[in-house]
Amino acid sequence: MLKIPEHQVAGHKASDGLLGPLVDDSGRFYKPLQDDERGSREVTFYTSFSSNTRVPDHIRRFFPNFYGTQLLEASDGSGLRPHLVLQDVVSSHLHPSIMDIKIGSRTWYPQAPEDYIQRCLKKDRETSSLSLGFRISGLQVHGNKELGHWKPERKVVQKLTADEVRLALRKFVSSNSSADPYVVPDSLFASSVYGGSSGILAQLLELKAWFEDQSIYHFNSCSVLIVYEKESVLKGGPSGAQVKLIDFAHVVEGNGVIDHNFLGGVCSLIKFISEILTTPDECLTTNCLQDSERAVLTMGTATGSEQSIYNA
Amino acid sequence: MLKIPEHQVAGHKASDGLLGPLVDDSGRFYKPLQDDERGSREVTFYTSFSSNTRVPDHIRRFFPNFYGTQLLEASDGSGLRPHLVLQDVVSSHLHPSIMDIKIGSRTWYPQAPEDYIQRCLKKDRETSSLSLGFRISGLQVHGNKELGHWKPERKVVQKLTADEVRLALRKFVSSNSSADPYVVPDSLFASSVYGGSSGILAQLLELKAWFEDQSIYHFNSCSVLIVYEKESVLKGGPSGAQVKLIDFAHVVEGNGVIDHNFLGGVCSLIKFISEILTTPDECLTTNCLQDSERAVLTMGTATGSEQSIYNA
Repeated sequence: MLKIPEHQVAGHKASDGLLGPLVDDSGRFYKPLQDDERGSREVTFYTSFSSNTRVPDHIRRFFPNFYGTQLLEASDGSGLRPHLVLQDVVSSHLHPSIMDIKIGSRTWYPQAPEDYIQRCLKKDRETSSLSLGFRISGLQVHGNKELGHWKPERKVVQKLTADEVRLALRKFVSSNSSADPYVVPDSLFASSVYGGSSGILAQLLELKAWFEDQSIYHFNSCSVLIVYEKESVLKGGPSGAQVKLIDFAHVVEGNGVIDHNFLGGVCSLIKFISEILTTPDECLTTNCLQDSERAVLTMGTATGSEQSIYNA
Repeated sequence: MLKIPEHQVAGHKASDGLLGPLVDDSGRFYKPLQDDERGSREVTFYTSFSSNTRVPDHIRRFFPNFYGTQLLEASDGSGLRPHLVLQDVVSSHLHPSIMDIKIGSRTWYPQAPEDYIQRCLKKDRETSSLSLGFRISGLQVHGNKELGHWKPERKVVQKLTADEVRLALRKFVSSNSSADPYVVPDSLFASSVYGGSSGILAQLLELKAWFEDQSIYHFNSCSVLIVYEKESVLKGGPSGAQVKLIDFAHVVEGNGVIDHNFLGGVCSLIKFISEILTTPDECLTTNCLQDSERAVLTMGTATGSEQSIYNA
C-alpha cells in the first residue's frame, strides 16, 4: 500500500531507487531514519515537540502530526528500517502547487561537527541563503495540459538573486506559469494565496510572532513548505493555502535564547511576499523586464512528467 | 580644545597614544578615518544616510548627527588626518552608564575580503555573537565612591553565556553594581531605564519595526549603544535612557533585501531585556545563584580609574 510521493519537490527521493520517503492512502508520510545522528535527532524533536505543553495550539498546526516510528521495508531495498510516521501534508490536495524554502542565512550551528559546518557554510555562501536569509530548495506549480507543470531545477532555484526570487514568488501564484521566458507572470492568485486573513502571509506572521518569543528550539536547516490548490482557486473556491514547517534533523535546544537565525530569515521571506501584495504589477510587462529577470523566466522547463529535484 | 573621551567603552582609544577619537566641549565627536576602505565606507554611509529622504525622522534620532569631515591633528601624533565630525552621544550626560552591544550573529558579509571574513567568523564563533545574535563589546556602570565604576574587561564580556548576559543586563540597571560576586544585583532601575514608553525596550522595538521593512542598508558589525544617567534616576529624575547606533565602517547597500542578520540579533536582545522587565527577581538571591552565574558576578573589578577596553 506504500507508494512513492507524487509531489515531493526537495529532499532524498525514493523514486530514484534510493532511500526516500513513502506515503500511503490514509494520508501518512513515512520518512526513513538516517543511520547517523540526524535520524535520532529528528525522532527526539518530534517526541519532545508533540508532548511539549509550552507550544500553543495555533503554532502546533504548522507542524506535521507525529504518529511515532515504525519498522518498514526501505525504498532502496536494503531491508527493514525504522521510519518516522508523519502526516502527509499534501495528501488533502489533488493538484498542489508547492514551494520548499529552507530558512536561515546559516544552516549550521555551533554544536555540529567541523566538516559539516564547513560544508554548510560553503553552500550557504554559494546559494541565496547568506544574502536573502533563505533559499528555495524546490518548487512545482501545477499547470494544465498546454502549460504542463512548472518545476525548475533545484540547482537553479537555490541560487536565485533577490530579483529572481521576487519573480519566482510571482510565478508561483500565476495562472500562466511556464518555462516560457516571454510569458509575464500574471500574479492572478496573489491575493487569494498570499493575502487575506488565512493566507500565506498571515500564517507566516503568526509563526514570526512565536519565533520572537520561543527559546525552546533552534530550527537549524528547517524548511517552510508553502502549498496551495490551483484548481480550486481557478474555480473560485478556497486556495487551501497552508504553511508547514518540515525537516527537523538539525533542531537543537534553544537554552533560553530565541532562534534569531530562523527569525531573521522568515522576516526576509515575509518582506518579499508583502511586496508582491502591495506593489502593483504594472512594471512586469515584457518590455520593462531586465535581462536578469528574463533569465529567471527561463529557469524551468515545461513538462507534465516528473523531474528530479533533490536536496543534499 | 580637543580631548580624549571620558566615557568610551569600546573601540580604538586615543588614551593609549594610539589613533582614536577625540571630543570637544561643544558636544562633537571626532572619529579619525582609517586609511583602508573602512574610513571611506563610513563617510559614504553618513553622507548617504544624512540626505536619504526614505529614512523617517523617528529613526534618524537613533543615529549620531553628522557634521561632515575635518582635517585634524591625529591623536597618535602622526600628523593631519581626516576625521568624521559627529554628535558626541554621551556629551549631555554627566555620569553616563554605557553598554556597547555589537549586533548580529555574523559580523562579516559576502562582499568582504576572504581574510577579513575568516577573522570575523572565528571571532563570532569564539564570542557570544553566534549563539546569542550579539556580543557585548564593552560597558561601564557609573558608581559611587565606595563602589567605584563597574567596568568589566572587554575580553570577558564578549564571551558571556546567555545566563551571564542576563545577569550583566541586570547589573547594568542596579544601584549596587560592583565587582563583588556576593552582591546580588537589585535591578532597581530596570523599569525606569528599560521600561516605559521612552525606555530602552520601547526604543529598540521602534528600531526593530524599521528593520523589518528597510532594505536600503545592511548594518554589518554595527553596535547599539545603550546609555542612561544613574545620578538622575537615583534622584527620581528622568533616566535619560537612549539607544544609539554607531560604527558604520562595514555598512553595505541592502539592494532590496532586509538586514535579516541585524534584525535577528536585535530581536534576541529585545527578548533578553523584556525578560528582565517581566521576570521577578525572586530567584536572584545569593543562595539560588548557580556557579556559572556567580562567575559572571566576578567578571569586573571595582575601580574609579580608567581600564582599557578595546575593540578589535
